[in-house]
Amino acid sequence: MRKARQAASFDSFELTCLIYGGNDKVRQRRAAFERVERLSGTHDTIVLPKCYANTNREEAYDQGLKVGKIAFEDGLKYGHSFFHKMTPRYTLSNASPFGLVTLLFEPAIELNGTEEQKAKWLPLSKAGEILGSYCQTELGHGTFVRGLQTTATLDRETDEFVIHSPTISSTKFWPGGIGFSATHAIVMAMLHIDSKEHGPHLFIVQLRAVEDGKPMPGIRLGDIGLKMAYNETDNGFASFNHVRVPRTNMLMAHASLSRNGLLSTIPGHQVLTYSTMLMGRFAIARTTAFQLAQATTIATRYSVVREQGVGHSPVGFEGKEMQIIHYKSQHFRLLTLMAKSYAILFASKHCDVEYEKFRLLQQKDSQSRLSYMHSLSAGVKAWSTEQAADGAEDARKCCGGHGFLMMSGLPEIVASVTAAATFEGENYVLWQQVGRHLLKCVDVAQGGGKLGPEVTYLFDLHGSSTQPCGATGAEFLSGEVQLNIYRHRARRLVETAHKALRSSKKPRSEAWNEHMMAIISAARAHMEYTILQSFVSHLRSLPATTTPSLRSALDRLRSLFALGNMVSPRTIDVISFVEDDHLSLAQLSAIRTLVNDVAERLVPDAIGLTDGWDFSDPSLCSALGMRDGNVYENMMGWVEQLPINRRAWDHNSGVYQPGWNSFVDPVLKGKL
Amino acid sequence: MRKARQAASFDSFELTCLIYGGNDKVRQRRAAFERVERLSGTHDTIVLPKCYANTNREEAYDQGLKVGKIAFEDGLKYGHSFFHKMTPRYTLSNASPFGLVTLLFEPAIELNGTEEQKAKWLPLSKAGEILGSYCQTELGHGTFVRGLQTTATLDRETDEFVIHSPTISSTKFWPGGIGFSATHAIVMAMLHIDSKEHGPHLFIVQLRAVEDGKPMPGIRLGDIGLKMAYNETDNGFASFNHVRVPRTNMLMAHASLSRNGLLSTIPGHQVLTYSTMLMGRFAIARTTAFQLAQATTIATRYSVVREQGVGHSPVGFEGKEMQIIHYKSQHFRLLTLMAKSYAILFASKHCDVEYEKFRLLQQKDSQSRLSYMHSLSAGVKAWSTEQAADGAEDARKCCGGHGFLMMSGLPEIVASVTAAATFEGENYVLWQQVGRHLLKCVDVAQGGGKLGPEVTYLFDLHGSSTQPCGATGAEFLSGEVQLNIYRHRARRLVETAHKALRSSKKPRSEAWNEHMMAIISAARAHMEYTILQSFVSHLRSLPATTTPSLRSALDRLRSLFALGNMVSPRTIDVISFVEDDHLSLAQLSAIRTLVNDVAERLVPDAIGLTDGWDFSDPSLCSALGMRDGNVYENMMGWVEQLPINRRAWDHNSGVYQPGWNSFVDPVLKGKL
Repeated sequence: MRKARQAASFDSFELTCLIYGGNDKVRQRRAAFERVERLSGTHDTIVLPKCYANTNREEAYDQGLKVGKIAFEDGLKYGHSFFHKMTPRYTLSNASPFGLVTLLFEPAIELNGTEEQKAKWLPLSKAGEILGSYCQTELGHGTFVRGLQTTATLDRETDEFVIHSPTISSTKFWPGGIGFSATHAIVMAMLHIDSKEHGPHLFIVQLRAVEDGKPMPGIRLGDIGLKMAYNETDNGFASFNHVRVPRTNMLMAHASLSRNGLLSTIPGHQVLTYSTMLMGRFAIARTTAFQLAQATTIATRYSVVREQGVGHSPVGFEGKEMQIIHYKSQHFRLLTLMAKSYAILFASKHCDVEYEKFRLLQQKDSQSRLSYMHSLSAGVKAWSTEQAADGAEDARKCCGGHGFLMMSGLPEIVASVTAAATFEGENYVLWQQVGRHLLKCVDVAQGGGKLGPEVTYLFDLHGSSTQPCGATGAEFLSGEVQLNIYRHRARRLVETAHKALRSSKKPRSEAWNEHMMAIISAARAHMEYTILQSFVSHLRSLPATTTPSLRSALDRLRSLFALGNMVSPRTIDVISFVEDDHLSLAQLSAIRTLVNDVAERLVPDAIGLTDGWDFSDPSLCSALGMRDGNVYENMMGWVEQLPINRRAWDHNSGVYQPGWNSFVDPVLKGKL
Repeated sequence: MRKARQAASFDSFELTCLIYGGNDKVRQRRAAFERVERLSGTHDTIVLPKCYANTNREEAYDQGLKVGKIAFEDGLKYGHSFFHKMTPRYTLSNASPFGLVTLLFEPAIELNGTEEQKAKWLPLSKAGEILGSYCQTELGHGTFVRGLQTTATLDRETDEFVIHSPTISSTKFWPGGIGFSATHAIVMAMLHIDSKEHGPHLFIVQLRAVEDGKPMPGIRLGDIGLKMAYNETDNGFASFNHVRVPRTNMLMAHASLSRNGLLSTIPGHQVLTYSTMLMGRFAIARTTAFQLAQATTIATRYSVVREQGVGHSPVGFEGKEMQIIHYKSQHFRLLTLMAKSYAILFASKHCDVEYEKFRLLQQKDSQSRLSYMHSLSAGVKAWSTEQAADGAEDARKCCGGHGFLMMSGLPEIVASVTAAATFEGENYVLWQQVGRHLLKCVDVAQGGGKLGPEVTYLFDLHGSSTQPCGATGAEFLSGEVQLNIYRHRARRLVETAHKALRSSKKPRSEAWNEHMMAIISAARAHMEYTILQSFVSHLRSLPATTTPSLRSALDRLRSLFALGNMVSPRTIDVISFVEDDHLSLAQLSAIRTLVNDVAERLVPDAIGLTDGWDFSDPSLCSALGMRDGNVYENMMGWVEQLPINRRAWDHNSGVYQPGWNSFVDPVLKGKL
């Protein structure tokens, strides 16, 4: 491992500073992690982590409460937000019962509350006097909010809302922390005034008493059971039986309801209600970059330690064993995944910048960029989670059988990043939102309207990407050439989908359904172009002090990302790069050769690129992926501490008596 | 659900008989399942299954012992083998501590033991007087058996072998049932005679005393901890400290060692030793067909119940909610997966026939088809597990958030089929074995040698698949046209890989590594052709009594399989269908239209195609996928029985006291 670490062509600490935003930030983060890990008892990695020892529902929740509380308090005490969006394990912060406070509860109030409401609720939340959550999803409805069934009916006499769950399928289901922890929640419900329905609105509802945790009258709360991950929090259900809250608990920044029952909304108020999701989606994308990097770090470290022969009898041939990272298929997969984690990170930094611009515009009362921002957040979320989920799973598979062991840390990472493909907007739905935005842009342009800069390429009919790609050999390593290829593909697919849809004679929704696959392909191609663009521009604007060696490693990573994607057998929609002859077979084969070469050159940097993320051993929580590379010793060290082994060995010289006595012995003794 | 069920164009029971081999077999199976489910207590699906309630390591193992014992004894008592390769949950039988007996232990003795050894050990095993396992994998080595480090050293004086684990990484790791259950195991170890090493051989080693379960002197055994699945069995570790077994415990059918230490081997003995794996791999492939079908059944049933709007504000458009199966992307995914599960099933039936032919040949002392059988078993295993693992995960994603819940049944299915991609030969290694076989065939043919019928197509230079594909429109629905396309692609990729490798100037193993991706692509294309071929020929040889309606449904399924694979955005290596212009862009677009149409026509048959598999509700163990389609009622029914909810509600009116008192209350009360 030391040798592999020393092989890097750059200093991994320089990369760390680039990722986290400078030396000071890196040191503050490290200190925060150390404090939390020490208080949680995970700092000593000789000790088997509790999550691999005590694994029933209650124990997992207790662990989440414990670590969540420590991280929550560390933020309050030291005034930082390191754990606001991610846990100390780099999972999205809603993996802890305390995590939705800063991820959704407070932002929802900030974005949708009046000044008065903000003044009332935010201080309570920030002081930790109430514990907030956010309840949207129901048993029968998720992303499609207009299908929600929970009702909030105005009672004019008492000036209250009656919150009610009229059906089983309207039970709120999945919200984090509501099973047993949260005291308050923002509940999305259909507003009813005088038997007229006014669509979904947000209401602050107290779920349980702050004094003793008892559910408020008429509210039934509980846990929804074990999930593939996120078992540290109590994702729960909530059923409301005519529960009353004051009228003033409706969040009224965009739609206000007066004492006399008059509803006044500002234009696009429903859209604005979803703004909470914008930030949520950017946070998700950002988190998946770290999760994919974690999985790749573990798999890469394992791959420089693990050795394997080059085939086996009868089909093998001679040769001694190699570290598996030197196998072409192994390092191509790992380095491509590493490149993707950086691509997601840089894209999410780009989104932060765009979001800031958008906020400034909003303050000037302009919502002109809202639909662009929605499309960007949907697309970045969908692409990042899709790539990170597939990628983390591929990294897990790169570890063979050991990646199947919970204590490899990989199953938990894969499962939690996979969840992200579903929550806050199922990806297939999001792709359609992006597609819809793009097709509208085409309509606007054809009607002579003006487009935002991010989509003008769709109509730049004289740009170089409209010509057949003329590049050869090493020219494909140029960022501009790569961008041209992605741009050409996106434009062609958007054009095709637009033509198919608009020329259809079928009713609108049927036509949409019929061409859904083409629309999704177009949306994905546009996002891949956008992601590559942010990768390229991020590298162009690196700090002037960046060393040439780091620059060239990152350049290679960018080429591996752009070109590797075009030749990897598993790329989604890969056929669209070539089906229109923009690239010839000979060019494709030249690209394959280049990719081989770029990947090969990056192998010595593999450990440096993983170390750059600066993951602590306790945060990886992996017997395979510790910094020291002592894989087999670490595995056996943890295995020997497993409770079932201690139980068998400490008192029974290797026999697990309950199982042996009840089941094995009777079979052997012929007591059939 | 009833409506969806009645929409089928055929009788699902006819399909069931086709899958399981006739009416009688179906009834026997059903009876066996009912007995086992009743005895295990899983028959009443109103009751929350134990696997979702009691989830720690010990409880999972206890459950596996209990159900494993019941299924094991049912087979003995009623003389059937329904649970020899699969558990009553359709997981590979090594999910139970009793499962390796018939899956690996007895076959290893049958294939590698002398008549005397068989006569000694098989009756003991079949009577249940010993409980066998199979130990190959070590902490540091898996598939590459020549790298194994466990030693078996002959002690001439005592006529014994000394079995020893010289390093930490040589610890046997992963074998099923050895943690606390198995009494005996076949152990693979490197044979040493007079300080000369003679490669891996198999030894019968007693692991623990039959009387009381105590590990034998010098053997350390234990559990390896929680895995993503298979927690019902005690995959374990075994470390040997100079453990002595009689010389006659070496399995000697292919290599015998005399009293005076003389080793005599028959040609290819090492190859023969791996024959155990042949059957194991076929069994794995067969199991994954059922697992993929299970996942697809759950997701399909859920999709005819779940409704969703057609987009949401701000990007939605008008329209009422639809059952999600009517969405193009949803039914394309589900039906394609269904088609794949049938493709795997038919391929595995084809393999059974080939294996039978091979056994007859072997009895005539001919090993001429051994390398073909190895290639077939490697390829079918790699392809099936790859497709089934990706496919089951896609089915899980088709269920949105609820598919993330353990009680959907999907995470467990996905995790266990995913494991299959790794065990009994990691897929990347297997693909290389297939590739190696194909390249050797090319060498043989170029040297004027004779080839087996399955690869002659590689040299049929005048066949229709060497011409550009001339088909248009509905002609693509012909099985022959589809086969031609797959055949052309496979031949081209094999040719390309062969040329690249054989013309390389580099040392052999370097050249192999350099062209690994091309070799794997060639191997996969050859297997996809083989799989399609078995699909086509299976449909051609259906029983004469098969109804026309079932025939045409299966024909559609075959077209969806062949053509869907070519246009699906997620197909591995999809680019190779078009990159040489065998198919034009116009043809591809015609195929897309056909696929849309075929999928649409199969929608009414969706429930019939899932019911055909005849899965019992307890075997699916899914709140989402029960036959009755009462998804939301079933979910809430189980959720309310969760131990953590009972604990909170039965005595504490909705408060989970441990968590509230220790962590939430202190935060709320400001005790930071």
